[in-house]
Amino acid sequence: MASAPQANAIVSQSGGPTGVINASLVGVIEEVKKHPEIKNLYGAIHAVSGIVKENFIDLMKVSNDVLETVAASPSSALGSSRDKPDAEYCKKILDVFKKRDIRYFFYIGGNDSANTCFIINNMAQEAKYELRAFHVPKTIDNDLLVTDHCPGFGTAAKFVSCALMGDDLDNRALPGIKIDVIMGRHAGFLTAASALGKQRDDDGPHLVYMPERPVSMDKFLSDVDSVYKKLGRCVIAVSEGMSDHDHKTWAEKITETQERDSHGNVQLSGTGALADYLASQIKSKLKVKRVRADTFGYLQRSFAGLQSPVDAAEARSCGRQAVQYAMNELNGSVAMKRTASGKNYGVELFRTELKNVAEKTKSLPDEFINKDGNGITSAFVEYAMPLTGGLPKTEYLGNFTKI
Amino acid sequence: MASAPQANAIVSQSGGPTGVINASLVGVIEEVKKHPEIKNLYGAIHAVSGIVKENFIDLMKVSNDVLETVAASPSSALGSSRDKPDAEYCKKILDVFKKRDIRYFFYIGGNDSANTCFIINNMAQEAKYELRAFHVPKTIDNDLLVTDHCPGFGTAAKFVSCALMGDDLDNRALPGIKIDVIMGRHAGFLTAASALGKQRDDDGPHLVYMPERPVSMDKFLSDVDSVYKKLGRCVIAVSEGMSDHDHKTWAEKITETQERDSHGNVQLSGTGALADYLASQIKSKLKVKRVRADTFGYLQRSFAGLQSPVDAAEARSCGRQAVQYAMNELNGSVAMKRTASGKNYGVELFRTELKNVAEKTKSLPDEFINKDGNGITSAFVEYAMPLTGGLPKTEYLGNFTKI
Repeated sequence: MASAPQANAIVSQSGGPTGVINASLVGVIEEVKKHPEIKNLYGAIHAVSGIVKENFIDLMKVSNDVLETVAASPSSALGSSRDKPDAEYCKKILDVFKKRDIRYFFYIGGNDSANTCFIINNMAQEAKYELRAFHVPKTIDNDLLVTDHCPGFGTAAKFVSCALMGDDLDNRALPGIKIDVIMGRHAGFLTAASALGKQRDDDGPHLVYMPERPVSMDKFLSDVDSVYKKLGRCVIAVSEGMSDHDHKTWAEKITETQERDSHGNVQLSGTGALADYLASQIKSKLKVKRVRADTFGYLQRSFAGLQSPVDAAEARSCGRQAVQYAMNELNGSVAMKRTASGKNYGVELFRTELKNVAEKTKSLPDEFINKDGNGITSAFVEYAMPLTGGLPKTEYLGNFTKI
Repeated sequence: MASAPQANAIVSQSGGPTGVINASLVGVIEEVKKHPEIKNLYGAIHAVSGIVKENFIDLMKVSNDVLETVAASPSSALGSSRDKPDAEYCKKILDVFKKRDIRYFFYIGGNDSANTCFIINNMAQEAKYELRAFHVPKTIDNDLLVTDHCPGFGTAAKFVSCALMGDDLDNRALPGIKIDVIMGRHAGFLTAASALGKQRDDDGPHLVYMPERPVSMDKFLSDVDSVYKKLGRCVIAVSEGMSDHDHKTWAEKITETQERDSHGNVQLSGTGALADYLASQIKSKLKVKRVRADTFGYLQRSFAGLQSPVDAAEARSCGRQAVQYAMNELNGSVAMKRTASGKNYGVELFRTELKNVAEKTKSLPDEFINKDGNGITSAFVEYAMPLTGGLPKTEYLGNFTKI
């Protein structure tokens, strides 16, 4: 292995923000400072678009106090971008790297970001330009391959489980049917996390619908009816990506219906549409009066002041580790392997090839979904609970012995 | 003043849950235990409906450990009810009180609950039945008269401000227009709290619309256009109760339009409708592509694990104080007076007449709303910030000096 070049480094953040992507950024910065091979550390603003525009800040000059606040702040402190660079775009990036003598590239993001790293790295190799390109994983969807789980998921899972814990207590206080629509178009991990905080036998969410298990509207209504008849209330968590057996998403079906029905300005493609539609279906078909629906939206990925401490620490470690790998390896993506579950929970980090992460995404494994396709298993709780850093305990007195 | 009778007591919780209504409940319980005049303490499940059904638990038997968990749990641990008792209903309540020798009534709720206390207290006096009826204030809307602020508001304000802090950082990372719809049909306190976490000059929410200031759709769109042209992004907080100059709420107007336009199953009366409508207006009229809208919904009042410590402590004190008053007074509502603002913030509790709280509700005072009716003043920040117990600090690096 060639020794690490004396050169500059660049770091950036891509895709949807998370609650701990800034912890990874700070991990990269603090580790870079330990390696005299790296002269300057550029922070590219708004990801790849900031690289081609040379929209850079000097991360070596940011004080430790500010960095600690960055590490605790949600969203992407360097800004983000949804650009998916093609070959021409990547060539421009490489030109900037050459111009600025950048030979270390740290890119924090999901599988698209790993792919960008992969393309640019190949391009550099072909151009015989020495570049060390490393991907640092992040996503609230938890859908990256190879790694046991992704930084960002634990914090989002903590938000969603605390939300459902409170919402279930609210629904006990004022009973009815409550629907909560959760982020995750293709992978059901975050929707599954809605059930992590269940503490009593009759705690909600009573039904959990994940995109890995297509469900017809008839089955959905029949499930809800059955819980409501039994408990007099029902709390339901639904992935925004839920689909019917024909693999068309529920959201798509609503849009079709709505476009055929209306000819005014109101569009139903906004974020609250699925929740409202499900509520109207329950009201009209099951004749239940008190039906409410919330769509959690961006709060799930960007709520200030709420991090899973486990997730934040792992995200920071992944950032640091990417820099350490870059001293000895030419490229790669940082991944986590679980060393133990339960009380002794821990992970060790390892390097995987960029293409292993860039190619596909992961779905919720079968063993995490119940037989009926409308709930989670204890195996999922065992997997996901440690990532939240623990959840608050709650009490409800309404079931205590009557006098 | 007649000495406190040897008899039983009852406590219950009414209306919409909050994050600290259980702290008030625990305050009542722990104080009752100090007064040998009170023999049993009944907890009525689901408020007044639980009283008439004699759906009671024995609160003296709940362990201190469980009580501490109750105090930290959101929602109403005794359940709630939306029933507004009429004279006949109140007579049934009084009959149960007589049957169970209940002469202390502690009712935690909003102005409707104060009114229920008032009616039952009058009825008892007419029947020459000695009853001490005390109202303990709660509401996330902060709209009770007399008191400086209401237990429940500080915690909801903390949730909403943390949500907007994160959402604004999210909007910086991926710029566009973002609308957040906040609870509060008549009073704008909670919507105003969306701006408490602003730390930088260009932090959002850039526009805040409160029901106290009716705004036309044209003015709304022109405000948004102006911010978007200046900053390239715009974060907007809108009260669910916003109305136009004709005092019809925006939500009502949408429903009218929608009902005229469509003839299918889709109803637009669900919770996401206002947010989605505003997003569609901005997309079509201002030709902005990236527009997103979230409706915060029940998370604002029932998120688990998030309390303002100041709010939780005050809520508990109000519960304790109600019991102390009951030892010397016949009835009343607990209120708070601010003894100092800023760093020396503190309150002292005082007793006010039930009818003073029962009659009306409070609106956001003029001095808390800016001249344009689309933002808050520093006076509001001074008023509301201490109630949150402090907010997290955040950092964004995108505005740092470029190199």
